[in-house]
Amino acid sequence: MNKNWIVFGLSNGLHYAKEIAKRVGIELGEVSVSKFADGELLVKPKVPVRGKDVLIVQSTSTPVNDNLMELLIAIDALKRASAQSIIAVIPYYGYGRQDRKAKGREPITCKLVADFIMKAGATKVILIDIHSEQTQGFFDVPVDTLTAASILINEYTKRNGCEKNFCIVAPDYGAVKKARNISEYLDVQLAIVDKRRPKPNVVEVSNILGDVRGKDCLLIDDMIDTGGTVLSSAKLLKEAGSKKVIIMATHGLFSNNAIEKFYKALDDNIVDELYVTDTIIENMSIKHKKIIVIDLSIFLSEIIEAQIKHTSVSKIYDKYWNNVCNIKKISKK
Amino acid sequence: MNKNWIVFGLSNGLHYAKEIAKRVGIELGEVSVSKFADGELLVKPKVPVRGKDVLIVQSTSTPVNDNLMELLIAIDALKRASAQSIIAVIPYYGYGRQDRKAKGREPITCKLVADFIMKAGATKVILIDIHSEQTQGFFDVPVDTLTAASILINEYTKRNGCEKNFCIVAPDYGAVKKARNISEYLDVQLAIVDKRRPKPNVVEVSNILGDVRGKDCLLIDDMIDTGGTVLSSAKLLKEAGSKKVIIMATHGLFSNNAIEKFYKALDDNIVDELYVTDTIIENMSIKHKKIIVIDLSIFLSEIIEAQIKHTSVSKIYDKYWNNVCNIKKISKK
Amino acid sequence: MNKNWIVFGLSNGLHYAKEIAKRVGIELGEVSVSKFADGELLVKPKVPVRGKDVLIVQSTSTPVNDNLMELLIAIDALKRASAQSIIAVIPYYGYGRQDRKAKGREPITCKLVADFIMKAGATKVILIDIHSEQTQGFFDVPVDTLTAASILINEYTKRNGCEKNFCIVAPDYGAVKKARNISEYLDVQLAIVDKRRPKPNVVEVSNILGDVRGKDCLLIDDMIDTGGTVLSSAKLLKEAGSKKVIIMATHGLFSNNAIEKFYKALDDNIVDELYVTDTIIENMSIKHKKIIVIDLSIFLSEIIEAQIKHTSVSKIYDKYWNNVCNIKKISKK
Amino acid sequence: MNKNWIVFGLSNGLHYAKEIAKRVGIELGEVSVSKFADGELLVKPKVPVRGKDVLIVQSTSTPVNDNLMELLIAIDALKRASAQSIIAVIPYYGYGRQDRKAKGREPITCKLVADFIMKAGATKVILIDIHSEQTQGFFDVPVDTLTAASILINEYTKRNGCEKNFCIVAPDYGAVKKARNISEYLDVQLAIVDKRRPKPNVVEVSNILGDVRGKDCLLIDDMIDTGGTVLSSAKLLKEAGSKKVIIMATHGLFSNNAIEKFYKALDDNIVDELYVTDTIIENMSIKHKKIIVIDLSIFLSEIIEAQIKHTSVSKIYDKYWNNVCNIKKISKK
Amino acid sequence: MNKNWIVFGLSNGLHYAKEIAKRVGIELGEVSVSKFADGELLVKPKVPVRGKDVLIVQSTSTPVNDNLMELLIAIDALKRASAQSIIAVIPYYGYGRQDRKAKGREPITCKLVADFIMKAGATKVILIDIHSEQTQGFFDVPVDTLTAASILINEYTKRNGCEKNFCIVAPDYGAVKKARNISEYLDVQLAIVDKRRPKPNVVEVSNILGDVRGKDCLLIDDMIDTGGTVLSSAKLLKEAGSKKVIIMATHGLFSNNAIEKFYKALDDNIVDELYVTDTIIENMSIKHKKIIVIDLSIFLSEIIEAQIKHTSVSKIYDKYWNNVCNIKKISKK
Amino acid sequence: MNKNWIVFGLSNGLHYAKEIAKRVGIELGEVSVSKFADGELLVKPKVPVRGKDVLIVQSTSTPVNDNLMELLIAIDALKRASAQSIIAVIPYYGYGRQDRKAKGREPITCKLVADFIMKAGATKVILIDIHSEQTQGFFDVPVDTLTAASILINEYTKRNGCEKNFCIVAPDYGAVKKARNISEYLDVQLAIVDKRRPKPNVVEVSNILGDVRGKDCLLIDDMIDTGGTVLSSAKLLKEAGSKKVIIMATHGLFSNNAIEKFYKALDDNIVDELYVTDTIIENMSIKHKKIIVIDLSIFLSEIIEAQIKHTSVSKIYDKYWNNVCNIKKISKK
Repeated sequence: MNKNWIVFGLSNGLHYAKEIAKRVGIELGEVSVSKFADGELLVKPKVPVRGKDVLIVQSTSTPVNDNLMELLIAIDALKRASAQSIIAVIPYYGYGRQDRKAKGREPITCKLVADFIMKAGATKVILIDIHSEQTQGFFDVPVDTLTAASILINEYTKRNGCEKNFCIVAPDYGAVKKARNISEYLDVQLAIVDKRRPKPNVVEVSNILGDVRGKDCLLIDDMIDTGGTVLSSAKLLKEAGSKKVIIMATHGLFSNNAIEKFYKALDDNIVDELYVTDTIIENMSIKHKKIIVIDLSIFLSEIIEAQIKHTSVSKIYDKYWNNVCNIKKISKK
Repeated sequence: MNKNWIVFGLSNGLHYAKEIAKRVGIELGEVSVSKFADGELLVKPKVPVRGKDVLIVQSTSTPVNDNLMELLIAIDALKRASAQSIIAVIPYYGYGRQDRKAKGREPITCKLVADFIMKAGATKVILIDIHSEQTQGFFDVPVDTLTAASILINEYTKRNGCEKNFCIVAPDYGAVKKARNISEYLDVQLAIVDKRRPKPNVVEVSNILGDVRGKDCLLIDDMIDTGGTVLSSAKLLKEAGSKKVIIMATHGLFSNNAIEKFYKALDDNIVDELYVTDTIIENMSIKHKKIIVIDLSIFLSEIIEAQIKHTSVSKIYDKYWNNVCNIKKISKK
Repeated sequence: MNKNWIVFGLSNGLHYAKEIAKRVGIELGEVSVSKFADGELLVKPKVPVRGKDVLIVQSTSTPVNDNLMELLIAIDALKRASAQSIIAVIPYYGYGRQDRKAKGREPITCKLVADFIMKAGATKVILIDIHSEQTQGFFDVPVDTLTAASILINEYTKRNGCEKNFCIVAPDYGAVKKARNISEYLDVQLAIVDKRRPKPNVVEVSNILGDVRGKDCLLIDDMIDTGGTVLSSAKLLKEAGSKKVIIMATHGLFSNNAIEKFYKALDDNIVDELYVTDTIIENMSIKHKKIIVIDLSIFLSEIIEAQIKHTSVSKIYDKYWNNVCNIKKISKK
Repeated sequence: MNKNWIVFGLSNGLHYAKEIAKRVGIELGEVSVSKFADGELLVKPKVPVRGKDVLIVQSTSTPVNDNLMELLIAIDALKRASAQSIIAVIPYYGYGRQDRKAKGREPITCKLVADFIMKAGATKVILIDIHSEQTQGFFDVPVDTLTAASILINEYTKRNGCEKNFCIVAPDYGAVKKARNISEYLDVQLAIVDKRRPKPNVVEVSNILGDVRGKDCLLIDDMIDTGGTVLSSAKLLKEAGSKKVIIMATHGLFSNNAIEKFYKALDDNIVDELYVTDTIIENMSIKHKKIIVIDLSIFLSEIIEAQIKHTSVSKIYDKYWNNVCNIKKISKK
Repeated sequence: MNKNWIVFGLSNGLHYAKEIAKRVGIELGEVSVSKFADGELLVKPKVPVRGKDVLIVQSTSTPVNDNLMELLIAIDALKRASAQSIIAVIPYYGYGRQDRKAKGREPITCKLVADFIMKAGATKVILIDIHSEQTQGFFDVPVDTLTAASILINEYTKRNGCEKNFCIVAPDYGAVKKARNISEYLDVQLAIVDKRRPKPNVVEVSNILGDVRGKDCLLIDDMIDTGGTVLSSAKLLKEAGSKKVIIMATHGLFSNNAIEKFYKALDDNIVDELYVTDTIIENMSIKHKKIIVIDLSIFLSEIIEAQIKHTSVSKIYDKYWNNVCNIKKISKK
Repeated sequence: MNKNWIVFGLSNGLHYAKEIAKRVGIELGEVSVSKFADGELLVKPKVPVRGKDVLIVQSTSTPVNDNLMELLIAIDALKRASAQSIIAVIPYYGYGRQDRKAKGREPITCKLVADFIMKAGATKVILIDIHSEQTQGFFDVPVDTLTAASILINEYTKRNGCEKNFCIVAPDYGAVKKARNISEYLDVQLAIVDKRRPKPNVVEVSNILGDVRGKDCLLIDDMIDTGGTVLSSAKLLKEAGSKKVIIMATHGLFSNNAIEKFYKALDDNIVDELYVTDTIIENMSIKHKKIIVIDLSIFLSEIIEAQIKHTSVSKIYDKYWNNVCNIKKISKK
């Protein structure tokens, strides 16, 4: 079975592709990505894919348009080279937040990108912690949406032990649903940071719904972009008497000078720990003792192996959750 | 311009169609809907639509599959009869909550229905207070999504005056975003009812995030189905010392015996007032002094007139919000 | 080969699915069909279908819209769950008669339904005795159209012997083509019942084209809906001196109180025998000595086995026709 | 309005196009059709069509593939030249009989051609007396299907008076439905010619269902191809004592040496009159006193004018039927 | 693997199909192609293709529309008969030169044909020496474009030895790109025939860019249609002192009386040799000692075998080029 | 008419949009283009487009992926905002050279981009001097392809007078077709620069086909990228005795340090003049007395006015060519 599979890694996906090839035991295909003098990309698989089932891995993170086009061109090349099936593995899905017309005359770029991926020729898509679950419905091909929540929590408890008195905090209303799911799963309390600006040019007023005093707060979101919201929430939590503030997000974009702001917040003990994954590949090189960058390639390999072998995906999740030591029992005291 | 427009009302949309025809000054087209002995529907416009711009109004509420097929068949008939454009006006959009795979192997019926509406031939869609905004992206044709929030709030303040000390309450986490938007618009506090069941077969534990004591609470959601969640939230709010509990929802499905439960809750003063609209046409016949069923046909006619005349839609919204007397100033005291 | 196949039965197809699974030796997949309080359906396969070749069985009979949506939602769920191929087996195809615009501005719902089945994701369709053969062309995916004629005739001769002096009768002009095919195949005479109403509100005048006196008449049609046409034809045949009148139809819808009318006609000896199949699943429970409900599951299993094993379908038909004992020789005397 | 319309006539449609232009008062567009040495066609409108509503007329009769490709290429050229809408007027629709898989592994070329017409860019189609009405459903764009029955009958009665004792005869079972409609409309009797070949290589046995003795028989079909069936039916009718045999068909293909066979049959008084239309343009040059070739261009112009002006099409039909002098009253004596 | 493959040959492809079947070791499927009296085609595979991978071979040469429709209908039949994949092998692709709008309002028939091939159901296409390489992009399915250049050159050197002093000549500017590629590959000089007509009705002036005196000139183009351009170029080359003129083209259409003109030119020693292939099947019967018609079936079989076995296509090309004895060394002296 | 039109200019098209609005007399729509911290774009028209015919102008030049996505997102926003038609005006079409698989497994990005433009919602496309004319066929919507050749030549003769002894030179074989067209139009000689590298790592050998001694050479190509080819050709021409070398190209990409290389070549009199247009907007700011950057906005406005008013486009071209003073007569001496 595995002989018919091959995995390619593009600029932002090579790390994962290598691990998948090694762990799942399938061929790692070489692909050349050239940039012409005028910026046009040429993407070309270097090995035959005729009749093969192909995995192509690429995060469409910054520079988002270049990375996206690289992926789309690669899919077109694979399709025209007679691949039998093309699974686009997109650990970080750019434009995921543009999933609706927030105001009149806005585009829905998240859907547009989905259309392009399908038009280019992908026959299936694998995503990790997309911004809104409805994005699945933007695709007419099957979508597998994975979540790294259990991996992140698992890592946290491994490092901090299980006897903590902690709660889950959503940094704003957009993050409530995800935070809620995790708080319910772990059976711990939920709190929400409620910020509002009464009028334009008036100071923002903040408020915490829920009791955080003396607790270890896990601020959870799907991604960190400039980090503004989550950092101001962290400060507010400390002011409100939180014992510790731990920030967790699957995707660490760290746009602008975000990473410097986090270094400072960690050094100033406004934030105690920061957990992100390596869906944004550059984050693998972060060296800060309080920043934990989790390698998702093992997890992703397990998922893909299950796909290829048609075995159960839920067992993989169970394995990670079960590793979260006794957390459920403890947290209920 | 208006001579080229015609509006049809199906079983669950005739009331609106008549009002739109009258108010906008366009032709009301007759359409025959027959049900054969075996339950198959035959839908047929009785007047020519060749080259016309057509509006077809239908809520796809209970019985959802019959109402949906009626709409789809009507659109097919209009398309084949050479209508120039077909705008499907769907005040209540059934299957709106099935907008994602909540669990593995689930369908995304909300998207499937969108596909069918487009495949049948609709060239544009108008929806009111859809369950999730991402549903817009399920369509490749333009979608106008309207909200009745200002109409509902406006009616409330007309009846209760503006000097109230009130807050907005989300009956669960799914409703937070909508409640949040309204609370921010009105600049009043927000509270959230947090319910969870620690383990299967264990009593549900409830908790209110935010301070509701002594306040008039507006419990807001997009729809009321069986009413269970909102009624238990209402009870909880009263127990927590709320002065009044007012329930507001655009779509009053009142499935099963929900309406009887609401009658009782209103009679027992657990709920003080209930506001819904007539997107579910049967609700127009509700006669209870504490239940206010708001006729949206005027609002809808204004919106459609703006569409036809290419005038501003936002002015219509402004008109309704501006009627909400001084609410912003008062609530900030 | 068979390990990759799985068959699911929906509300109106479970009986067939079970038989197919057993006889063909493939997995019978469980599927949950839930109806929410508001009538919305949720259909979900309970077992993995990733990479599988799936058969999904559902008659879209009364309540036609509910059964159709159940099928469409199921196909969507299977597609999104990464099934490799999805064959929709639809023993009775509702809306089959709405296959053309009989008058201006009518829909062509038969085509619309075909579009929906394809849009949902079916990669192939199997139908039994569809109303018009052109329905095949409404699909862009392969369609296998089966006919139960040989099974019905075979059962008739088994019960009545072969030495009969009989003829085939079409109850109206719409049924002529099918009746003609069978009469030619069996080489027996054909007669047609010609009814017309000279003017509105004038008594219908009937006329039999062809000689039926003293003969056993097989009135054949693809379906019985309210039964009006076929029963009045039966009466006319008896008045014209037919010895026996046997009614045969693949699909016994028996809309309204049709079944009571047939009971009476059988008791009054206007009809001598009635043959239908179990494509309308409820008919399996009919208990009347003169009504023969033929189980098509064996036949369907044989056909599907041939599909899976890529063996000849025509041999299966031959087997049934060859069982029709000597009928050809006898009828030519 | 008319200024935006333009009509083009291809090789087999120029006659109609000219009449339509003249009668409807729209521009007649010139189009060049070149055939290269290797047989490839180049079709090119000679005048601008940017933003215009275009009618393009072409019968896809013999040589069917050349005429079809000419039409398809013309539509492509019009689409790429920015026509606003393209109505394909196809008086005779070739491949119309290949509308289903009569046997396993057959194509459905009638559907394939419909797909090509749509793919090329037609936004609407107008057809005359298509072989099966289900062909409408092969198109996703609107189809107007016209019938020349009233024109043919009208012409017959003009020539023969109304006091005739006549009946409608279907030359085979395939023609029953059309014959039936006309017989019902005129309220005259229907007969059917029933031919069958008991075994291969055995003489065909014929039989007439219905009484034709002493009557004027109108043998009606949608088309005459080689004429074999209709001529043998005519002979049979004469043998069965018919007074006169009149053959009517919209489309006179006269394949092979059919026209000579008809000349002979007319000269031998086996057939008394033959009515066809000029949908097959070559038939306009037939000169035989017993063959009446009816010019449909007036009728077609009236229909298209109604389309452009959005007036009633049924009034045009009524006009023709009403001209059929007293036929209904007389025939009922 | 090979058991699942089957190859069909249509009217203009049977020769290749037979060779492919024999050489690759796969089944040769019989297909019936009937032409009705009115010219309509019926194409039907005579053996089952359910679940098979199908190759269907047809050159769409003169009569181009008939051959094209034959191919398209065959693909439709195969698709509806449940073939798993359908590879259209089109040795000569008609309408290939209509690949752009050379002037306003022209069609792009080359793209239209590509659309039809895909719409009919082909899942892949194999072409030989198409007129412009951009034609690949007209397809959304994979296209393999083969070139017979190495075969033609190889045959030439086999017959003429390698010690020749020769150059490549493009007969007009359209052929420059192909000629250039070959001249570069062989590292020999290139010349171009530059013809122009200063004004309409003025004698054409010709000019040769590059030095051809005393050389053997290989005039190369993708196809010979009426042969006018290439023959006048040959004459010019001889006048300019060329030693020999050899004409090479993959596709020998020989429209009109082209073949007679070539016979004369060869007899008159204006042309010394003419090389074409058998993509135009009729050319196989040419018997002239100076015309070499190369059978491509071996080459095509090798390519298709590589496709089925997923082996390298480039090795096949290398084999033929390497056979071109020492040509590179010699030509550089 | 004009009231329904509106033109938007994106980052690389605003200059043209403004001129079009002013000259054609239509509304210039404001559009906001925001770039988020992570590089994602949000494009939003600031004024209503409901029911409008929209022109949107954007060159997809460097940075090509950003500019392309900006265009695609804008089209999506316009479509969802209910624009009636959307014409994408793309003066420079990026990825135009990736129009075929030059080698195995290459993508055809030029087609992919065309697919995206259509999928986003463009209903028509206007391009200027695309790399290959076949790109028109990559679109299913109408494409108008303009050429600036007459503008460039016209400017040249205005500056240099008409009495020149000049010839057209193609810098390589890819440019031959365009150069040939112009040389034929002007009736002047053509020359071609023939470069080849005998073996890898061996010095390139160059050769000029045609006589250039003492002539003014117009080196013509569709675009200048890094300028390498055209500059080495220029040098070669001077070495071969050309009097003057003038370089002309519609699109001046000037990738890498190309512009510096041109400054030097102009200063060194290897090149005497360089003509480009402002399709690459940055070139408008080039200040060099020997570089002439031609503003195409007047020409483009004229073309678009003709589109809107349905007047002749060819008259506009004639105007420019006729301005090329007496060039045809002179050159023929």
